[in-house]
Amino acid sequence: MRAAHDDVIERLRLAVPGRVVTDADVLESARTDRSGTFASGRPIAVVYAESIEDVQAVCRIADETDTPLVTRGAGTGLAGGAIAGDGEIALSTERMCRVLEISAENQLCVVEPGILNGDLNRQLAERGLWWPPDPASKDISTVGGNIASNAGGLLCAKYGVTREAVLALKVVLVDGTLLEVGHRTVKGVTGYDLCALMIGSEGTLGIVVEATLKLRPAVMGVVPTIGAYFDSIADAVAAVAAVTAAGLQPAIMELMDRSMLEAVAAHTGLDLASAGTAYLLVQTDGPNALAEAQAVLVEVQAAGGRAEITTDPDAAASMVDVRRQGLPAMEALGALLIEDVAVPRDRMAEMYARIEEIAERYDVLIPTPAHAGDGNLHPTFVFEGSTSDVPDRIWDAARELFRAGLELGGTLTGEHGVGVLKRAFLGDELGDAQYEIQKRIKAVFDPKGLLNPGKVFGS
Amino acid sequence: MRAAHDDVIERLRLAVPGRVVTDADVLESARTDRSGTFASGRPIAVVYAESIEDVQAVCRIADETDTPLVTRGAGTGLAGGAIAGDGEIALSTERMCRVLEISAENQLCVVEPGILNGDLNRQLAERGLWWPPDPASKDISTVGGNIASNAGGLLCAKYGVTREAVLALKVVLVDGTLLEVGHRTVKGVTGYDLCALMIGSEGTLGIVVEATLKLRPAVMGVVPTIGAYFDSIADAVAAVAAVTAAGLQPAIMELMDRSMLEAVAAHTGLDLASAGTAYLLVQTDGPNALAEAQAVLVEVQAAGGRAEITTDPDAAASMVDVRRQGLPAMEALGALLIEDVAVPRDRMAEMYARIEEIAERYDVLIPTPAHAGDGNLHPTFVFEGSTSDVPDRIWDAARELFRAGLELGGTLTGEHGVGVLKRAFLGDELGDAQYEIQKRIKAVFDPKGLLNPGKVFGS
Ligand SMILES: Cc1cc2nc3c(=O)[nH]c(=O)nc-3n(C[C@H](O)[C@H](O)[C@H](O)COP(=O)(O)OP(=O)(O)OC[C@H]3O[C@@H](n4cnc5c(N)ncnc54)[C@H](O)[C@@H]3O)c2cc1C
Ligand SMILES: Cc1cc2nc3c(=O)[nH]c(=O)nc-3n(C[C@H](O)[C@H](O)[C@H](O)COP(=O)(O)OP(=O)(O)OC[C@H]3O[C@@H](n4cnc5c(N)ncnc54)[C@H](O)[C@@H]3O)c2cc1C
Repeated sequence: MRAAHDDVIERLRLAVPGRVVTDADVLESARTDRSGTFASGRPIAVVYAESIEDVQAVCRIADETDTPLVTRGAGTGLAGGAIAGDGEIALSTERMCRVLEISAENQLCVVEPGILNGDLNRQLAERGLWWPPDPASKDISTVGGNIASNAGGLLCAKYGVTREAVLALKVVLVDGTLLEVGHRTVKGVTGYDLCALMIGSEGTLGIVVEATLKLRPAVMGVVPTIGAYFDSIADAVAAVAAVTAAGLQPAIMELMDRSMLEAVAAHTGLDLASAGTAYLLVQTDGPNALAEAQAVLVEVQAAGGRAEITTDPDAAASMVDVRRQGLPAMEALGALLIEDVAVPRDRMAEMYARIEEIAERYDVLIPTPAHAGDGNLHPTFVFEGSTSDVPDRIWDAARELFRAGLELGGTLTGEHGVGVLKRAFLGDELGDAQYEIQKRIKAVFDPKGLLNPGKVFGS
Repeated sequence: MRAAHDDVIERLRLAVPGRVVTDADVLESARTDRSGTFASGRPIAVVYAESIEDVQAVCRIADETDTPLVTRGAGTGLAGGAIAGDGEIALSTERMCRVLEISAENQLCVVEPGILNGDLNRQLAERGLWWPPDPASKDISTVGGNIASNAGGLLCAKYGVTREAVLALKVVLVDGTLLEVGHRTVKGVTGYDLCALMIGSEGTLGIVVEATLKLRPAVMGVVPTIGAYFDSIADAVAAVAAVTAAGLQPAIMELMDRSMLEAVAAHTGLDLASAGTAYLLVQTDGPNALAEAQAVLVEVQAAGGRAEITTDPDAAASMVDVRRQGLPAMEALGALLIEDVAVPRDRMAEMYARIEEIAERYDVLIPTPAHAGDGNLHPTFVFEGSTSDVPDRIWDAARELFRAGLELGGTLTGEHGVGVLKRAFLGDELGDAQYEIQKRIKAVFDPKGLLNPGKVFGS
């Protein structure tokens, strides 16, 4: 039986005094995330847990009163995964941001979930260590959020996604049970890999309250940078394919298409039109960085790229800046729907062609950067109005784009997750049988469906 | 309702003619694996599936007749995971051994499950590619078996376990449903990671019938080898810790303790006693291999290691041979129970001390090699009699060893899996709540409990 909201708030205040906030502006901000989507209605409270026990207490109350619960890291998600609405409790991990242990001998650290990725990595850097997951949002997103969304980033073709960088998790289930999944050891095969199952589960299975992270030694030395302009996106994609096929593994391999370059040119005043209609940014790192960069350069030039290579920090910064200006440049053009398809690397040229075709047919601008090393494209629909109110026409175009991605053997979302924005399309990718099994797994952890309801699953 | 065995055999013969074998010797060999454990009774048939459709047909019959089904790769498992007994169907993947695709551009290949790891890697090597999982059994074990047991090996501190090298799987469920889990893309976050869930599930959730594997470029260049003798295992462990803490990442870092060296000395006639009481074998690879090996050498010597370093193949071969002779040398001493605990790397010295203490107290020989780079020890109990009949006293000692591993923050099994041999201890590691959840996940995939019954779960 669902209890009256006031009773729930009362119980929360008793259980975790000083952590329960019901101010209108706080509730209002919990209704949305960086996707610009808003939940309908407002949550009944935002609870700022400070400990595992706090999280357990809140979960027990949610469970006993049948109150839905939405976990929230920093709210930078782009799929509406952390938005809390009418009758729901928003549970924030913001105050759980301690580093509990750093071990160089074990190449691991143990942290609370609310610490920002960037803050953690600054502490690790002092010890010559590094946690590789590097979403572009790393300075503003939490480790717990990165884990719950299996975040990717620029470096993950070489260094892997978040799943590869997590050893163990403590997870609170909706009934307050504390589970410890994974291993503090590098290897371990006792039973099913529930640690991997939790990673990317977007707050629907349990709340990550502590994480044991697998670290690497910080990568030292020069990072040569290559910036190359091409006459067509197809040529640029061919360069990427040649680099991969040659067995080279750059740290970063970022691609920009014509309409993105045009946006950056308009925004910055740079004359990019004369430079080319596609741009490829490559960085190599590690002990062999220079030789590897030279080998990359050969492939890039053979594919028709007009390339510069540098190890000078200033020159590198301006090459990187072309890419970095992409988001502000697009934001200057209008409201955005940032998409996130991934395709097998050898289908990237086709995907770009499909995007161009959709852009023309729907008469919409879709500048598209890509993490080219792993075939992950971010087609970005530009439209008039507000990000929180995507027009039907744009959704129709996006739907065609998803279909194209799936037809090419790809996926709806390479790194941003399903949240609410893509839940209607999940079944298309998974197929009925797998969709059903996924829902049954959800029910194993959360039989009453109280954790992040309407996210991932639903139509 | 469980059907009569003859009816089941009849239905199998009709559904998959030419693939059903009931010869006594074939049935007999399916009763065991390389653990030396035997199932009670004999399976009713061994079915050699040749296609996905074959597997689906067999599963449907198992499901409709309530007949338990045990999947079998090459039967090299060390936990009794593939053994089939009374009233069970053994489903062999031996004839499903084709390579369906190799793509350098996508750095992936698609294979049937029954191909041997070594056979696959020979084909990949011709294209300059490599699938990293490298159990010591790679020439005799199947890719499907490696996946079902999330196999580790010598190289996995540097190159990861099997889970990190699988992109997607086709899996047949017990009712014949074909699931496609994972992604052909490098990244993908649509729903729960069922691909990771299948990896290491030891044939209890479904049958892996096709795998899309993540490849790497073959590692080129010299592989410097270091062999170092120490006066104590503690010193050798300290050397390993220093190497890791210095941010060095050897490809291989293998440790041998005193009783293992003594076994090798006795077996080979080499004079190892004068050399030392612990042995560390290190190899580095990649573009920076030589410089890295030199840096390792500094740490090894600082920790008291009397070390040689070489790039000469013959000299390297004799350093490697000390380790390679370990298994035959132990087999020459008696029957073996090969254990597989893993502990956090900074607890390895303590684990060795605990093993020594247990060996003394139970008056049993426990030579213990370790994949030191990832804290995975293989304490090997030597006893008189037969491997298929481990004395209670040995099990008592093993149980203490498991407990010690868990107390040190470790795991029961780093890479061999649970199978039947460790099912009684699984709950000790997972705790009641997680054990219960794991069983409920099993029930989602296999509600009647027909797939590999008695394996992983059970007492
Ligand atoms: C400018 C910008 C750039 C970005 N670049 C990238 C990128 O390169 N790669 C990428 O992958 N993403 C990127 N993102 C998306 C986003 O930053 C990531 O998804 C990030 O991992 C979310 O972290 P968060 O702390 O903000 O989580 P939130 O947005 O608060 O939550 C995300 C999801 O995780 C759940 N969650 C959060 N914490 C927990 C927890 N402790 N336990 C259980 N569930 C939890 C929430 O319920 C929600 O479903 C970007 C976003 C922005 C705004
Ligand atoms: C000398 C020797 C050295 C070894 N060294 C190592 C090592 O270094 N690292 C390591 O990890 N292991 C090692 N092993 C153990 C063993 O070789 C591995 O576990 C291997 O992965 C098993 O492969 P297999 O094909 O023999 O599988 P099997 O033994 O036939 O089966 C193993 C498990 O997988 C299941 N299974 C097999 N195929 C499928 C499939 N297609 N779908 C679903 N389930 C399936 C079975 O039901 C069983 O539970 C070693 C074994 C020996 C004998």
